[in-house]
Amino acid sequence: MKKMPVLKTVAIIPSAGLGRRMGSQKKNYLDLLARPILAHTLGAFERCSSIDSVIVVVTPGDEVFCRKDIIERFGLRKAARVIAGGAERQDSVYNALEYTDGFDLIAVHDGARPLVTVEIIEAVIRAATESGSAIAAVPVKDTVKSISDGFVEKTIDRTSLVSVQTPQVFRRDILLQSFDQARRDNYKGTDESSLAERAGFKVKAVPGSYENIKITTPEDIIIAESILRNRAG
Amino acid sequence: MKKMPVLKTVAIIPSAGLGRRMGSQKKNYLDLLARPILAHTLGAFERCSSIDSVIVVVTPGDEVFCRKDIIERFGLRKAARVIAGGAERQDSVYNALEYTDGFDLIAVHDGARPLVTVEIIEAVIRAATESGSAIAAVPVKDTVKSISDGFVEKTIDRTSLVSVQTPQVFRRDILLQSFDQARRDNYKGTDESSLAERAGFKVKAVPGSYENIKITTPEDIIIAESILRNRAG
Repeated sequence: MKKMPVLKTVAIIPSAGLGRRMGSQKKNYLDLLARPILAHTLGAFERCSSIDSVIVVVTPGDEVFCRKDIIERFGLRKAARVIAGGAERQDSVYNALEYTDGFDLIAVHDGARPLVTVEIIEAVIRAATESGSAIAAVPVKDTVKSISDGFVEKTIDRTSLVSVQTPQVFRRDILLQSFDQARRDNYKGTDESSLAERAGFKVKAVPGSYENIKITTPEDIIIAESILRNRAG
Repeated sequence: MKKMPVLKTVAIIPSAGLGRRMGSQKKNYLDLLARPILAHTLGAFERCSSIDSVIVVVTPGDEVFCRKDIIERFGLRKAARVIAGGAERQDSVYNALEYTDGFDLIAVHDGARPLVTVEIIEAVIRAATESGSAIAAVPVKDTVKSISDGFVEKTIDRTSLVSVQTPQVFRRDILLQSFDQARRDNYKGTDESSLAERAGFKVKAVPGSYENIKITTPEDIIIAESILRNRAG
Protein backbone atom coordinates (compact mmCIF):
# COMPACT_ATOMS: atom_id res chain seq x y z
CA MET A 1 0.00 0.00 0.00
CA LYS A 2 1.18 3.49 -0.82
CA LYS A 3 2.28 5.61 2.06
CA MET A 4 -0.19 8.42 2.50
CA PRO A 5 0.02 11.77 4.16
CA VAL A 6 -1.75 11.99 7.51
CA LEU A 7 -4.42 14.62 7.18
CA LYS A 8 -6.35 16.20 10.02
CA THR A 9 -9.94 15.09 9.67
CA VAL A 10 -13.13 16.41 11.23
CA ALA A 11 -16.48 14.66 10.97
CA ILE A 12 -19.78 16.52 10.67
CA ILE A 13 -22.74 14.45 11.86
CA PRO A 14 -26.08 16.03 10.89
CA SER A 15 -28.64 14.67 13.34
CA ALA A 16 -31.41 17.24 13.20
CA GLY A 17 -33.93 15.05 11.36
CA LEU A 18 -37.44 15.14 12.67
CA GLY A 19 -38.12 11.45 12.14
CA ARG A 20 -41.60 12.03 10.74
CA ARG A 21 -41.87 8.40 9.72
CA MET A 22 -41.02 7.27 13.25
CA GLY A 23 -43.84 8.91 15.16
CA SER A 24 -41.03 10.57 17.09
CA GLN A 25 -39.53 14.01 17.08
CA LYS A 26 -36.06 12.73 17.83
CA LYS A 27 -35.49 9.47 16.05
CA ASN A 28 -31.75 9.46 16.60
CA TYR A 29 -32.30 9.38 20.36
CA LEU A 30 -34.30 6.15 20.13
CA ASP A 31 -32.50 3.08 21.46
CA LEU A 32 -30.84 0.29 19.53
CA LEU A 33 -30.10 -2.43 22.07
CA ALA A 34 -30.25 0.03 24.98
CA ARG A 35 -28.04 2.68 23.42
CA PRO A 36 -29.32 5.66 21.41
CA ILE A 37 -28.91 5.50 17.63
CA LEU A 38 -26.75 8.63 17.71
CA ALA A 39 -24.46 7.11 20.35
CA HIS A 40 -23.83 4.13 18.04
CA THR A 41 -23.05 6.49 15.16
CA LEU A 42 -20.69 8.64 17.22
CA GLY A 43 -19.10 5.51 18.68
CA ALA A 44 -17.90 4.41 15.24
CA PHE A 45 -16.20 7.78 14.69
CA GLU A 46 -14.77 7.66 18.23
CA ARG A 47 -13.11 4.33 17.45
CA CYS A 48 -11.79 5.44 14.04
CA SER A 49 -8.18 6.54 14.49
CA SER A 50 -8.26 8.73 11.35
CA ILE A 51 -10.92 10.97 12.88
CA ASP A 52 -9.60 13.82 15.02
CA SER A 53 -12.77 15.64 15.98
CA VAL A 54 -16.54 15.45 15.57
CA ILE A 55 -19.18 18.17 15.19
CA VAL A 56 -22.74 17.06 15.92
CA VAL A 57 -25.53 19.14 14.40
CA VAL A 58 -28.85 18.84 16.26
CA THR A 59 -32.29 20.39 16.27
CA PRO A 60 -32.10 23.83 17.94
CA GLY A 61 -32.84 23.34 21.65
CA ASP A 62 -31.41 19.81 21.79
CA GLU A 63 -27.81 20.86 22.38
CA VAL A 64 -27.76 20.26 26.14
CA PHE A 65 -29.59 16.94 25.90
CA CYS A 66 -27.19 15.73 23.22
CA ARG A 67 -24.14 16.79 25.22
CA LYS A 68 -25.27 15.35 28.57
CA ASP A 69 -27.32 12.31 27.63
CA ILE A 70 -25.41 11.11 24.59
CA ILE A 71 -21.89 12.48 24.45
CA GLU A 72 -20.99 12.61 28.15
CA ARG A 73 -22.99 9.56 29.13
CA PHE A 74 -21.27 7.37 26.56
CA GLY A 75 -17.82 8.93 26.92
CA LEU A 76 -17.60 10.21 23.34
CA ARG A 77 -14.60 12.45 23.73
CA LYS A 78 -14.06 13.34 20.08
CA ALA A 79 -17.46 15.05 19.90
CA ALA A 80 -15.99 18.46 20.61
CA ARG A 81 -18.91 20.55 19.42
CA VAL A 82 -22.69 20.35 19.38
CA ILE A 83 -24.30 23.04 17.25
CA ALA A 84 -27.83 23.89 16.10
CA GLY A 85 -28.90 22.80 12.63
CA GLY A 86 -30.73 24.70 9.94
CA ALA A 87 -34.01 24.19 8.13
CA GLU A 88 -32.65 21.43 5.93
CA ARG A 89 -29.79 18.98 6.05
CA GLN A 90 -27.73 21.04 3.61
CA ASP A 91 -28.13 24.08 5.89
CA SER A 92 -27.09 22.01 8.90
CA VAL A 93 -23.86 20.90 7.25
CA TYR A 94 -23.24 24.45 6.08
CA ASN A 95 -23.59 25.73 9.66
CA ALA A 96 -20.94 23.26 10.78
CA LEU A 97 -18.41 24.29 8.13
CA GLU A 98 -17.75 27.40 10.17
CA TYR A 99 -16.03 25.25 12.81
CA THR A 100 -13.69 23.36 10.48
CA ASP A 101 -10.72 25.76 10.40
CA GLY A 102 -7.43 23.92 10.66
CA PHE A 103 -8.68 20.60 9.29
CA ASP A 104 -7.61 19.15 5.94
CA LEU A 105 -10.48 16.74 5.36
CA ILE A 106 -14.17 16.88 6.24
CA ALA A 107 -16.22 13.70 6.62
CA VAL A 108 -20.01 14.10 6.54
CA HIS A 109 -22.07 11.22 7.95
CA ASP A 110 -25.79 10.81 8.67
CA GLY A 111 -26.55 10.61 12.39
CA ALA A 112 -29.19 8.04 11.40
CA ARG A 113 -26.62 5.54 10.02
CA PRO A 114 -25.50 3.89 13.27
CA LEU A 115 -24.21 0.69 11.66
CA VAL A 116 -21.32 2.30 9.81
CA THR A 117 -18.05 0.53 10.58
CA VAL A 118 -14.58 1.91 11.27
CA GLU A 119 -13.43 0.05 8.14
CA ILE A 120 -15.86 1.91 5.89
CA ILE A 121 -14.95 5.28 7.40
CA GLU A 122 -11.24 4.54 6.92
CA ALA A 123 -11.76 3.41 3.33
CA VAL A 124 -13.61 6.59 2.35
CA ILE A 125 -11.02 8.78 4.08
CA ARG A 126 -8.24 6.94 2.26
CA ALA A 127 -9.93 7.46 -1.11
CA ALA A 128 -10.55 11.16 -0.40
CA THR A 129 -6.95 11.58 0.65
CA GLU A 130 -5.94 10.32 -2.79
CA SER A 131 -8.59 11.90 -4.99
CA GLY A 132 -10.01 14.83 -3.02
CA SER A 133 -13.59 13.56 -2.75
CA ALA A 134 -15.03 10.13 -1.97
CA ILE A 135 -18.32 8.54 -0.95
CA ALA A 136 -19.53 5.16 0.29
CA ALA A 137 -21.97 3.44 -2.05
CA VAL A 138 -23.40 0.00 -2.82
CA PRO A 139 -24.67 -1.48 -6.09
CA VAL A 140 -28.41 -1.03 -6.65
CA LYS A 141 -30.16 -4.40 -6.12
CA ASP A 142 -33.64 -3.68 -7.50
CA THR A 143 -34.56 -3.29 -11.11
CA VAL A 144 -34.87 0.46 -11.63
CA LYS A 145 -36.87 2.15 -14.37
CA SER A 146 -37.47 5.74 -15.33
CA ILE A 147 -41.09 6.77 -15.61
CA SER A 148 -42.75 9.44 -17.66
CA ASP A 149 -46.47 10.27 -17.42
CA GLY A 150 -47.10 7.05 -15.53
CA PHE A 151 -45.53 4.81 -18.18
CA VAL A 152 -42.13 3.15 -18.23
CA GLU A 153 -39.69 5.21 -20.22
CA LYS A 154 -36.84 2.72 -19.95
CA THR A 155 -35.16 0.15 -17.74
CA ILE A 156 -31.95 1.63 -16.41
CA ASP A 157 -28.84 -0.50 -16.80
CA ARG A 158 -28.22 -1.15 -13.13
CA THR A 159 -24.71 -2.52 -13.59
CA SER A 160 -23.45 1.07 -13.38
CA LEU A 161 -25.87 2.29 -10.68
CA VAL A 162 -25.12 2.69 -6.99
CA SER A 163 -27.20 3.64 -3.96
CA VAL A 164 -25.39 6.36 -2.13
CA GLN A 165 -24.56 6.22 1.57
CA THR A 166 -22.40 8.16 3.95
CA PRO A 167 -19.67 8.85 5.00
CA GLN A 168 -18.82 11.29 2.24
CA VAL A 169 -15.34 12.77 2.65
CA PHE A 170 -13.86 15.84 0.96
CA ARG A 171 -10.77 17.98 1.08
CA ARG A 172 -11.92 21.02 3.02
CA ASP A 173 -11.27 23.49 0.18
CA ILE A 174 -13.31 21.33 -2.21
CA LEU A 175 -16.29 21.14 0.14
CA LEU A 176 -16.20 24.88 0.91
CA GLN A 177 -16.05 25.77 -2.77
CA SER A 178 -18.86 23.30 -3.56
CA PHE A 179 -21.14 24.75 -0.87
CA ASP A 180 -20.35 28.32 -1.92
CA GLN A 181 -21.30 27.58 -5.48
CA ALA A 182 -24.51 25.78 -4.46
CA ARG A 183 -25.56 28.68 -2.23
CA ARG A 184 -24.79 31.22 -4.89
CA ASP A 185 -27.04 29.33 -7.31
CA ASN A 186 -29.61 28.36 -4.68
CA TYR A 187 -29.01 24.71 -5.59
CA LYS A 188 -30.31 21.97 -3.29
CA GLY A 189 -28.65 18.58 -3.50
CA THR A 190 -29.71 15.31 -1.92
CA ASP A 191 -26.17 14.76 -0.65
CA GLU A 192 -22.86 16.64 -0.31
CA SER A 193 -21.33 14.78 -3.24
CA SER A 194 -23.91 16.23 -5.64
CA LEU A 195 -22.66 19.71 -4.72
CA ALA A 196 -19.06 18.70 -5.39
CA GLU A 197 -20.00 16.99 -8.68
CA ARG A 198 -21.86 20.12 -9.73
CA ALA A 199 -18.79 22.23 -8.95
CA GLY A 200 -16.77 20.00 -11.29
CA PHE A 201 -14.89 17.80 -8.81
CA LYS A 202 -14.27 14.10 -9.42
CA VAL A 203 -15.79 11.95 -6.69
CA LYS A 204 -14.51 8.44 -6.01
CA ALA A 205 -17.06 5.76 -5.05
CA VAL A 206 -15.91 3.29 -2.38
CA PRO A 207 -17.79 0.13 -1.35
CA GLY A 208 -20.09 0.80 1.60
CA SER A 209 -22.19 -2.02 3.03
CA TYR A 210 -25.82 -3.11 2.74
CA GLU A 211 -25.76 -3.13 6.56
CA ASN A 212 -24.96 0.59 6.64
CA ILE A 213 -28.68 1.43 6.57
CA LYS A 214 -30.34 4.73 7.35
CA ILE A 215 -32.89 4.41 10.12
CA THR A 216 -36.15 5.94 8.93
CA THR A 217 -38.98 3.59 9.92
CA PRO A 218 -39.78 1.43 12.98
CA GLU A 219 -38.89 -1.64 10.88
CA ASP A 220 -35.40 -0.23 10.42
CA ILE A 221 -34.87 -0.38 14.19
CA ILE A 222 -35.75 -4.07 14.16
CA ILE A 223 -33.37 -4.75 11.28
CA ALA A 224 -30.58 -2.73 12.88
CA GLU A 225 -30.90 -4.61 16.18
CA SER A 226 -30.79 -7.89 14.35
CA ILE A 227 -27.61 -6.84 12.50
CA LEU A 228 -26.02 -5.69 15.77
CA ARG A 229 -26.91 -8.97 17.52
CA ASN A 230 -25.45 -10.86 14.61
CA ARG A 231 -22.19 -8.86 14.86
CA ALA A 232 -22.00 -9.47 18.60
CA GLY A 233 -22.75 -13.12 17.70
CA MET B 1 -64.97 4.30 -12.53
CA LYS B 2 -65.14 3.02 -16.08
CA LYS B 3 -66.77 -0.30 -16.63
CA MET B 4 -64.12 -2.78 -17.65
CA PRO B 5 -64.27 -6.10 -19.45
CA VAL B 6 -63.75 -9.12 -17.21
CA LEU B 7 -60.71 -10.94 -18.49
CA LYS B 8 -59.64 -14.44 -17.55
CA THR B 9 -56.41 -14.10 -15.63
CA VAL B 10 -53.76 -16.66 -14.72
CA ALA B 11 -50.90 -15.96 -12.33
CA ILE B 12 -47.42 -17.43 -12.80
CA ILE B 13 -45.46 -17.60 -9.53
CA PRO B 14 -41.76 -18.38 -10.09
CA SER B 15 -40.50 -19.90 -6.86
CA ALA B 16 -37.43 -21.82 -7.95
CA GLY B 17 -34.88 -19.48 -6.34
CA LEU B 18 -32.08 -21.18 -4.48
CA GLY B 19 -31.93 -18.65 -1.67
CA ARG B 20 -28.14 -18.52 -1.65
CA ARG B 21 -28.17 -15.55 0.72
CA MET B 22 -30.39 -17.47 3.14
CA GLY B 23 -28.18 -20.43 3.86
CA SER B 24 -31.13 -22.45 2.60
CA GLN B 25 -31.88 -24.29 -0.60
CA LYS B 26 -35.58 -23.51 -0.38
CA LYS B 27 -36.06 -20.04 0.99
CA ASN B 28 -39.70 -19.80 -0.03
CA TYR B 29 -40.49 -22.77 2.22
CA LEU B 30 -39.17 -20.96 5.30
CA ASP B 31 -41.82 -19.82 7.75
CA LEU B 32 -43.17 -16.34 8.31
CA LEU B 33 -45.23 -16.54 11.49
CA ALA B 34 -45.64 -20.32 11.19
CA ARG B 35 -46.66 -20.34 7.53
CA PRO B 36 -44.27 -20.80 4.61
CA ILE B 37 -43.37 -17.70 2.60
CA LEU B 38 -44.83 -19.29 -0.54
CA ALA B 39 -48.12 -20.02 1.25
CA HIS B 40 -48.45 -16.33 2.12
CA THR B 41 -47.75 -15.39 -1.51
CA LEU B 42 -50.24 -17.88 -2.90
CA GLY B 43 -52.77 -16.84 -0.27
CA ALA B 44 -52.89 -13.30 -1.64
CA PHE B 45 -53.66 -14.63 -5.13
CA GLU B 46 -56.22 -17.07 -3.69
CA ARG B 47 -58.08 -14.15 -2.09
CA CYS B 48 -57.94 -11.96 -5.20
CA SER B 49 -61.20 -12.36 -7.06
CA SER B 50 -59.67 -11.26 -10.39
CA ILE B 51 -57.34 -14.27 -10.40
CA ASP B 52 -58.79 -17.42 -11.95
CA SER B 53 -55.87 -19.83 -11.75
CA VAL B 54 -52.28 -20.02 -10.50
CA ILE B 55 -49.24 -21.83 -11.89
CA VAL B 56 -46.40 -22.33 -9.40
CA VAL B 57 -42.93 -22.89 -10.84
CA VAL B 58 -40.58 -24.72 -8.47
CA THR B 59 -37.10 -26.27 -8.47
CA PRO B 60 -37.24 -29.61 -10.30
CA GLY B 61 -37.92 -32.31 -7.73
CA ASP B 62 -39.92 -30.04 -5.40
CA GLU B 63 -43.25 -30.52 -7.16
CA VAL B 64 -44.71 -33.06 -4.73
CA PHE B 65 -43.52 -31.18 -1.65
CA CYS B 66 -45.05 -27.97 -2.96
CA ARG B 67 -48.35 -29.63 -3.80
CA LYS B 68 -48.72 -31.55 -0.51
CA ASP B 69 -47.04 -29.32 2.06
CA ILE B 70 -47.98 -25.93 0.72
CA ILE B 71 -50.94 -26.03 -1.65
CA GLU B 72 -53.01 -28.84 -0.10
CA ARG B 73 -52.05 -28.09 3.49
CA PHE B 74 -53.15 -24.47 3.21
CA GLY B 75 -56.18 -25.12 0.97
CA LEU B 76 -54.91 -23.06 -1.96
CA ARG B 77 -57.43 -24.21 -4.53
CA LYS B 78 -56.50 -21.83 -7.34
CA ALA B 79 -53.00 -23.30 -7.59
CA ALA B 80 -53.98 -25.68 -10.36
CA ARG B 81 -50.50 -26.52 -11.57
CA VAL B 82 -47.04 -27.00 -10.14
CA ILE B 83 -44.33 -27.25 -12.77
CA ALA B 84 -40.54 -27.48 -12.83
CA GLY B 85 -38.55 -24.32 -13.44
CA GLY B 86 -35.59 -23.69 -15.71
CA ALA B 87 -32.04 -22.54 -15.13
CA GLU B 88 -33.05 -18.92 -14.61
CA ARG B 89 -36.15 -17.04 -13.66
CA GLN B 90 -36.85 -16.04 -17.25
CA ASP B 91 -36.72 -19.72 -18.26
CA SER B 92 -39.09 -20.63 -15.43
CA VAL B 93 -41.69 -18.12 -16.57
CA TYR B 94 -41.23 -19.26 -20.16
CA ASN B 95 -41.90 -22.87 -19.13
CA ALA B 96 -45.16 -21.78 -17.54
CA LEU B 97 -46.41 -19.91 -20.62
CA GLU B 98 -47.16 -23.30 -22.20
CA TYR B 99 -50.02 -23.74 -19.72
CA THR B 100 -51.72 -20.39 -20.30
CA ASP B 101 -54.00 -21.28 -23.25
CA GLY B 102 -57.46 -19.80 -22.83
CA PHE B 103 -56.43 -16.93 -20.53
CA ASP B 104 -56.54 -13.26 -21.55
CA LEU B 105 -54.13 -11.84 -18.99
CA ILE B 106 -51.01 -13.25 -17.36
CA ALA B 107 -49.81 -11.95 -13.97
CA VAL B 108 -46.22 -12.79 -13.01
CA HIS B 109 -45.32 -12.48 -9.33
CA ASP B 110 -42.21 -13.43 -7.33
CA GLY B 111 -42.82 -16.32 -4.94
CA ALA B 112 -40.51 -14.45 -2.56
CA ARG B 113 -42.85 -11.42 -2.25
CA PRO B 114 -45.31 -12.76 0.35
CA LEU B 115 -46.52 -9.34 1.53
CA VAL B 116 -48.24 -8.38 -1.68
CA THR B 117 -51.84 -7.36 -1.05
CA VAL B 118 -55.02 -8.14 -2.96
CA GLU B 119 -55.35 -4.37 -3.57
CA ILE B 120 -51.99 -4.18 -5.36
CA ILE B 121 -52.75 -7.26 -7.48
CA GLU B 122 -56.15 -5.79 -8.45
CA ALA B 123 -54.64 -2.40 -9.30
CA VAL B 124 -52.03 -3.88 -11.62
CA ILE B 125 -54.61 -6.13 -13.31
CA ARG B 126 -56.89 -3.11 -13.82
CA ALA B 127 -54.06 -1.10 -15.40
CA ALA B 128 -53.08 -4.00 -17.68
CA THR B 129 -56.69 -4.45 -18.71
CA GLU B 130 -56.65 -0.85 -19.89
CA SER B 131 -53.19 -0.56 -21.36
CA GLY B 132 -52.03 -4.09 -22.12
CA SER B 133 -49.04 -4.15 -19.72
CA ALA B 134 -48.60 -2.92 -16.16
CA ILE B 135 -46.19 -3.32 -13.25
CA ALA B 136 -46.11 -2.43 -9.55
CA ALA B 137 -43.36 0.01 -8.61
CA VAL B 138 -42.39 2.46 -5.86
CA PRO B 139 -40.36 5.67 -5.99
CA VAL B 140 -36.64 5.20 -5.34
CA LYS B 141 -35.78 6.53 -1.85
CA ASP B 142 -31.98 6.54 -1.93
CA THR B 143 -29.81 8.95 -3.83
CA VAL B 144 -28.69 7.02 -6.91
CA LYS B 145 -25.61 7.78 -8.98
CA SER B 146 -24.10 6.24 -12.06
CA ILE B 147 -20.48 5.20 -11.78
CA SER B 148 -17.78 4.87 -14.38
CA ASP B 149 -14.30 3.50 -13.61
CA GLY B 150 -14.92 3.90 -9.90
CA PHE B 151 -15.84 7.58 -10.09
CA VAL B 152 -19.24 9.22 -10.00
CA GLU B 153 -20.47 9.96 -13.49
CA LYS B 154 -23.60 11.75 -12.39
CA THR B 155 -26.35 11.90 -9.79
CA ILE B 156 -29.52 10.53 -11.34
CA ASP B 157 -32.62 12.67 -10.97
CA ARG B 158 -34.58 10.33 -8.75
CA THR B 159 -37.90 12.12 -9.14
CA SER B 160 -38.53 10.01 -12.24
CA LEU B 161 -37.02 6.75 -10.94
CA VAL B 162 -38.90 3.77 -9.55
CA SER B 163 -37.86 0.49 -7.95
CA VAL B 164 -39.67 -2.27 -9.73
CA GLN B 165 -41.73 -4.91 -7.94
CA THR B 166 -44.18 -7.58 -8.95
CA PRO B 167 -46.95 -8.34 -9.88
CA GLN B 168 -46.34 -7.53 -13.52
CA VAL B 169 -49.43 -8.16 -15.65
CA PHE B 170 -49.66 -8.46 -19.43
CA ARG B 171 -52.15 -9.33 -22.11
CA ARG B 172 -51.24 -12.88 -23.04
CA ASP B 173 -50.42 -12.05 -26.68
CA ILE B 174 -48.11 -9.23 -25.55
CA LEU B 175 -46.19 -11.45 -23.13
CA LEU B 176 -45.87 -14.31 -25.64
CA GLN B 177 -44.58 -11.96 -28.34
CA SER B 178 -42.17 -10.32 -25.87
CA PHE B 179 -40.72 -13.68 -24.78
CA ASP B 180 -40.46 -14.90 -28.37
CA GLN B 181 -38.48 -11.84 -29.35
CA ALA B 182 -36.20 -12.09 -26.29
CA ARG B 183 -35.48 -15.76 -27.00
CA ARG B 184 -34.81 -15.10 -30.65
CA ASP B 185 -32.23 -12.46 -29.68
CA ASN B 186 -30.95 -14.38 -26.63
CA TYR B 187 -31.84 -11.34 -24.50
CA LYS B 188 -31.93 -11.67 -20.71
CA GLY B 189 -34.00 -9.18 -18.77
CA THR B 190 -34.17 -8.60 -15.03
CA ASP B 191 -37.97 -8.65 -15.17
CA GLU B 192 -40.77 -9.49 -17.60
CA SER B 193 -41.52 -5.84 -18.24
CA SER B 194 -38.06 -5.29 -19.73
CA LEU B 195 -38.91 -7.90 -22.38
CA ALA B 196 -42.18 -6.15 -23.20
CA GLU B 197 -40.49 -2.72 -23.28
CA ARG B 198 -37.86 -4.11 -25.61
CA ALA B 199 -40.58 -5.49 -27.91
CA GLY B 200 -42.04 -1.98 -28.12
CA PHE B 201 -45.02 -2.25 -25.75
CA LYS B 202 -46.04 0.60 -23.43
CA VAL B 203 -45.96 -0.49 -19.79
CA LYS B 204 -48.00 1.33 -17.14
CA ALA B 205 -46.46 1.78 -13.68
CA VAL B 206 -48.87 1.40 -10.76
CA PRO B 207 -48.05 2.19 -7.11
CA GLY B 208 -46.83 -0.89 -5.29
CA SER B 209 -45.88 -0.65 -1.62
CA TYR B 210 -42.62 -0.40 0.33
CA GLU B 211 -44.01 -3.33 2.34
CA ASN B 212 -44.12 -5.52 -0.78
CA ILE B 213 -40.52 -6.62 -0.18
CA LYS B 214 -38.65 -9.51 -1.74
CA ILE B 215 -37.30 -11.90 0.86
CA THR B 216 -33.62 -12.48 0.17
CA THR B 217 -31.78 -12.31 3.51
CA PRO B 218 -32.50 -13.50 7.07
CA GLU B 219 -33.11 -9.85 8.03
CA ASP B 220 -35.93 -9.75 5.48
CA ILE B 221 -37.75 -12.49 7.41
CA ILE B 222 -37.58 -10.38 10.56
CA ILE B 223 -38.91 -7.32 8.74
CA ALA B 224 -41.66 -9.30 7.05
CA GLU B 225 -42.84 -10.78 10.34
CA SER B 226 -42.90 -7.35 11.89
CA ILE B 227 -45.00 -6.00 9.01
CA LEU B 228 -47.40 -8.97 9.28
CA ARG B 229 -47.77 -8.49 13.05
CA ASN B 230 -48.45 -4.82 12.48
CA ARG B 231 -51.15 -5.66 9.93
CA ALA B 232 -52.77 -8.15 12.29
CA GLY B 233 -52.60 -5.21 14.74
